[in-house]
Order: sequence, then structure tokens, then C-alpha cells
Amino acid sequence: MIILGIDPGLAKTGCGVIKAVGNRIAPLTYGAITTRPGQDLAGRLRIIYDGISELCRQYHPDVAAIEEIFFAANVKTAVDVAQARGVAILATESCGLELAQYSPLRIKQAVVGYGRATKKQVQQMVKVLLSLEEIPRPDHAADALAAALCHVFTNKLNILLKQQNS
Amino acid sequence: MIILGIDPGLAKTGCGVIKAVGNRIAPLTYGAITTRPGQDLAGRLRIIYDGISELCRQYHPDVAAIEEIFFAANVKTAVDVAQARGVAILATESCGLELAQYSPLRIKQAVVGYGRATKKQVQQMVKVLLSLEEIPRPDHAADALAAALCHVFTNKLNILLKQQNS
Repeated sequence: MIILGIDPGLAKTGCGVIKAVGNRIAPLTYGAITTRPGQDLAGRLRIIYDGISELCRQYHPDVAAIEEIFFAANVKTAVDVAQARGVAILATESCGLELAQYSPLRIKQAVVGYGRATKKQVQQMVKVLLSLEEIPRPDHAADALAAALCHVFTNKLNILLKQQNS
Repeated sequence: MIILGIDPGLAKTGCGVIKAVGNRIAPLTYGAITTRPGQDLAGRLRIIYDGISELCRQYHPDVAAIEEIFFAANVKTAVDVAQARGVAILATESCGLELAQYSPLRIKQAVVGYGRATKKQVQQMVKVLLSLEEIPRPDHAADALAAALCHVFTNKLNILLKQQNS
């Protein structure tokens, strides 16, 4: 199974593609789609859409894993992230990907083992789980990989539960 | 000039197309693109994108006018609206439309004459300005038409100001 993790943002949309076969998980690519603050909104959304579409064409993922948005404080940031999230999801839909959404809590639980893990701990675990030499940069890429890893572990758990129940 | 006004929302995206020639403004079409709450998010965003694209193909607007998002209270609603707004803007970009964004205050000022007008007053003025028999339904359609009208009036003002300064 190939999973495209996405951490959406208007200035930086983190992306990470991983391949999971049995117990082996390998990173295929990761990074961020960046847009300039001075650019017009429509153009920035276009860049994000095209960037995600290009990743789909190159790596043929089966599923997109994306974090749910929980913002307590800043509505302006939430709106920017959500607009980027909308076009990112549309791009994966255009490429026929299944969509899996996970809460930040769920991602931390899946990747680190507990829901109140720090950002740093999540990044360290992403590095270890994918046998990377360094913590993925930028932060958005690490978050995207964490969402993808969360999907792998959740999926495995679901398969195990189904086997036990059958 | 043909203007496509959009009032984005995940369940209902209001749309209104108007044509402005000299002092004459005529409505070409208005209504709402609706999606079902039970449907998956990616599918709902696809319906909104396709709906806006279809309006662009049918009416060949020159510009899209869309309200800026100002939410004080509910972040969940802001996120849903913003995701819909993102794909709606992407659709207009795909069709080569210029994008004009207006604050709610600006739209009320342009359509009613003062920024603290009620929703009902805005709807009444939309009805009058477009010589409609009834207030456009649903509310989202009226709001979309108000955004489009705001663009016409703002554009006229800009032309007048340019003429005075030249």
C-alpha cells in the first residue's frame, strides 16, 4: 500500500509518500509545496493543487492521509489552512485516492504511543520508524509523514481486529 | 462585464451570475450548489468544484466576486466554509476568471449604502437592484448576488475615480 500524507497550509503544504508492505515501511519522498505570501490566493491554491496532483501521478498512492483541523485560537490561520486543505483533498479525489482523516490526538497515539506527545517526539519517531538519517524538514513534511504512518498503523490494527473477530 | 458571485459553504454554496452593461444590470442565473451532510468530504468538494466550473462554462463570466471569511465564534463552521471556498476559487482560476474578494462590511456598504445593514435589508436591495419579483432563495444565492453587485459598484467607482484623476 502506498500512502500520501498531507499536512496542508497556504504557505507550506507538507507532503510525504510512504510504502508499506507487510512489516516494512519505506519513505518514497517527502517535502513541502511552498507558495509566496505576496502571490494572489487563486494562484497559491493552484500551486497546491498541481503539486499534490503531480505527487499522485509520480507515486500512484492508494490513499491520502490528512490531519483534521483543530484550532482553538486563530481563525485567520484556520481559514488559510482550510482553503489549502480543500484543494489538496480535491486533488487526491481527482486522482481517485481514498481519503482518511485523523485527529492530531490519534496521529500522536499511533506514531508515538500517547496522545500528548510533543512535536519533537513525533518528529523523532517519524525519523526512527522510517529509518531516516535526520528528522524530515520542513516540520510540515514530518507532520505529513506522521499522518501517513498513522494510516498504516490504524489499517494494520483494523486488519488484526477483523481477523480476531472472524 | 459578467460577474459570478459566490457565497461558499459546504452544505450550500450560493451562486449568482449577473451582467452589467453601462447602467443596466441583469441577473443571468442564481441558486445554490448543495451537498448532503452524510456524503464524504472529498465528494462534497468535488460537487462544489464541478458546479462552479459548469457555471463558468455556461455563462463565461469575466470575474468571480467572493466574500472574505470573518468568523468570530465557530471555528468548525469556518473550516467547512473555507474548504468549500478553496475549491470554489480553484474552479474560477481553472476557468481563467479574475478574483475579487470583498469584506462583508464592504458588500453591505456597496449594496445597501451602509455597513451595518441587516441580512434582510441586503436581500431587499438585491431584489430591487436586479428587478426581481421576489427575494432570491436560498439566502446563499442572495448573498452571492450581493457580492457580484458589490463588484459592479466598486468597479464603477474605480473607473470614475480614474477618469477624475486623469
